Amino acid sequence: MNSIMTKAMVRRCRRFCSNLRQCRIPNKKLASPPITDEPFLLALSSKQKEQPVAAMGCPNEGCGYMAVTDQAAVWYLHPIRVRYQETDQMGIVFHGNYVTWFEIGRTELVRQLGMPYVQIEREGLLLPVVDLECKYVSPARYDDIVLICTTIEQFSPVRLSFRSEVRRIRQGEEYPAEWRGQRPPGELLVQGGTSHVWVNKEFRPSRLDKSLPELYALLKRVSKGNI
Amino acid sequence: MNSIMTKAMVRRCRRFCSNLRQCRIPNKKLASPPITDEPFLLALSSKQKEQPVAAMGCPNEGCGYMAVTDQAAVWYLHPIRVRYQETDQMGIVFHGNYVTWFEIGRTELVRQLGMPYVQIEREGLLLPVVDLECKYVSPARYDDIVLICTTIEQFSPVRLSFRSEVRRIRQGEEYPAEWRGQRPPGELLVQGGTSHVWVNKEFRPSRLDKSLPELYALLKRVSKGNI
Amino acid sequence: MNSIMTKAMVRRCRRFCSNLRQCRIPNKKLASPPITDEPFLLALSSKQKEQPVAAMGCPNEGCGYMAVTDQAAVWYLHPIRVRYQETDQMGIVFHGNYVTWFEIGRTELVRQLGMPYVQIEREGLLLPVVDLECKYVSPARYDDIVLICTTIEQFSPVRLSFRSEVRRIRQGEEYPAEWRGQRPPGELLVQGGTSHVWVNKEFRPSRLDKSLPELYALLKRVSKGNI
Amino acid sequence: MNSIMTKAMVRRCRRFCSNLRQCRIPNKKLASPPITDEPFLLALSSKQKEQPVAAMGCPNEGCGYMAVTDQAAVWYLHPIRVRYQETDQMGIVFHGNYVTWFEIGRTELVRQLGMPYVQIEREGLLLPVVDLECKYVSPARYDDIVLICTTIEQFSPVRLSFRSEVRRIRQGEEYPAEWRGQRPPGELLVQGGTSHVWVNKEFRPSRLDKSLPELYALLKRVSKGNI
Repeated sequence: MNSIMTKAMVRRCRRFCSNLRQCRIPNKKLASPPITDEPFLLALSSKQKEQPVAAMGCPNEGCGYMAVTDQAAVWYLHPIRVRYQETDQMGIVFHGNYVTWFEIGRTELVRQLGMPYVQIEREGLLLPVVDLECKYVSPARYDDIVLICTTIEQFSPVRLSFRSEVRRIRQGEEYPAEWRGQRPPGELLVQGGTSHVWVNKEFRPSRLDKSLPELYALLKRVSKGNI
Repeated sequence: MNSIMTKAMVRRCRRFCSNLRQCRIPNKKLASPPITDEPFLLALSSKQKEQPVAAMGCPNEGCGYMAVTDQAAVWYLHPIRVRYQETDQMGIVFHGNYVTWFEIGRTELVRQLGMPYVQIEREGLLLPVVDLECKYVSPARYDDIVLICTTIEQFSPVRLSFRSEVRRIRQGEEYPAEWRGQRPPGELLVQGGTSHVWVNKEFRPSRLDKSLPELYALLKRVSKGNI
Repeated sequence: MNSIMTKAMVRRCRRFCSNLRQCRIPNKKLASPPITDEPFLLALSSKQKEQPVAAMGCPNEGCGYMAVTDQAAVWYLHPIRVRYQETDQMGIVFHGNYVTWFEIGRTELVRQLGMPYVQIEREGLLLPVVDLECKYVSPARYDDIVLICTTIEQFSPVRLSFRSEVRRIRQGEEYPAEWRGQRPPGELLVQGGTSHVWVNKEFRPSRLDKSLPELYALLKRVSKGNI
Repeated sequence: MNSIMTKAMVRRCRRFCSNLRQCRIPNKKLASPPITDEPFLLALSSKQKEQPVAAMGCPNEGCGYMAVTDQAAVWYLHPIRVRYQETDQMGIVFHGNYVTWFEIGRTELVRQLGMPYVQIEREGLLLPVVDLECKYVSPARYDDIVLICTTIEQFSPVRLSFRSEVRRIRQGEEYPAEWRGQRPPGELLVQGGTSHVWVNKEFRPSRLDKSLPELYALLKRVSKGNI
């Protein structure tokens, strides 16, 4: 069994989980199997080995941390048209609107997974944002068609994070809702991401694997690339 | 007793109440006292007569309709600074933002009355908009200081309507939160109004005089000009 | 020649044009042909007579006022998905957002006419809103699919007004971008309209028939129902 | 002369300037004076030494990079009231609105410096956002009073970055527009920051020390804490 975890990944896993003290990998356990800085492999069947490795999970039982590798990330694409209201007097889209667009991308991603966010809220779960970052490369303008591209970056039973890109495409260009590959199509305008925690209606943290196991199973399946 | 009601006012009252069939003034009753087109007077004490007539109520028992006369309207003033986000690529404020500003004006008005809107919602009441109108005279621009001016136009136990104006003032100008007079200060940019109905959390109509009588009493008091 | 104009229409035309004193139909001229309250007919070729009358124009030379009749209005339909950002704490769409949606509808209408609004602005023309009204029948909610329905109501060389409706449709329902008929499909949520004036970059009024005659011709053609 | 620069600071300076290749400190020059990880001191007069060190500048001639130290940062405070429109159906402020609030804070900061942002734009300069980050600690709610706290973090002639915090205060609490101290008052809700570049109307980079030297001088003065 070749479950290898890099130091960087352990660090990331701990940071991601730290608030809730779930991930307590004893340092001894980490010593062997050898920790390398190479991408690591989960124990895979021979059939799976032919496919790109889609996800890396923390070997600690019960942690549930999973990171989606770049090679196999599925980008969910959703085109929108820039609204007049979204421009500002610089003649470009006001920078805060990309945050709204990221949200649209996430909504469409979970719809594609098979469980619309309205239904998630109906089950009593909320997914507030705890962290946001955004790099502005080039401005979108009124009436542009932009593709909101969203992918799951990492998750555990208590947290979930997305990467998002906004890319300009041309009138008439059409793309499938799911895109496998390093980079989604179009001209990069903005890239960023958001982190979230699962909470109940009283804003108390809620473990997704217990409160909505169907969705947790969907996340695991899609992060392994076999939806 | 000189309770005179104009035809125009009866028409307005009926329209305002019609959805809920509360105002059924028999035509006979309207015939006397004589219906004129002059402003009408409620039965007033001699002390009150010296003050401008502030409100006209429907003489029909239980209707509760009350219109605030122009002469005695109290305008509630609230200054705000125009945000960059509120501009659009025309270089002026996007026209939809005045609707948000009207809402701010109403929030400040009910706070001044003595019952913040957060408290009203905590009591289980909502006040959704059912009608909106807006005339755009001159555009507001980034960093302008505008005065949101709001007054109660008319109300009944089930409905409430406001008139709103947005007026530009200059840096350093200060005005009291309550303004009595025909026209609030500053340069008129936009004028309009909104109508609302009182509903409960399930969006069912709710009679304010029963669900929150303190607030209904406040409205009556202020519309008579003696807050 | 049976160019009949109703009194109501003359009133409307005058109100619409009054700011710019273009429509000065002498009362004498209005007396004959007889002014009735029936819908009136422009002088039509026999071929046109078989089609529904799409527009009523002011007979005054140079006025250019044209109203689109209800029978033959073309509604331009554009579906959008309600965004999370557009909701408020009442759990419904904040009422100001319909104003943004109306704008989207107008953008899509002029694109359908054949001249995208970006191009109009590139030609140096702006179309600010001078009047807005909005009736709220039923609230839209997060993730609803709503159809923004827009039609040209009336126009002259200096003004243009639209009627707008927001209607809820169900997932999977599809409609053509142009809809001929009294009522567009779906459940009515909000209806209203906006009036606009053509201005140049300095916000001075600009006669569309002179500054951008191609667009003016398009408006005339479409309002007669033969696009 | 005790101009000591830490390795971390050199790294930051290079990253901040790298796009425009202004900061080319030869490694030799950095070797002496000794690079430590302690805060460093500019060559200061004895009078200045009694004051907290407010800014650290890159010793490279012409680089102009300056970082404001935590000890002496001036926070500019600006209270606002949360609008109904800013809430979403979670019952809290939609996370994208903090981005708009950060912008308000920056507007008020430059106004306090003595050059309103409207005037900066009138001079032909724009300051678009190139980077944004935001950590959400606790949600703001409708009608809360929040203090937008903004401070200059670092700048060079071509770039400028701010740190921003949103803090909840109570009705009636009042604070001066300028706050010196580690932490501004109130309960921390959100913290983050934005980076910007100076560009002209054509979105070409513009050196502030040449295009608007008065403002550049203001920035230098305030970052040394002696406004």
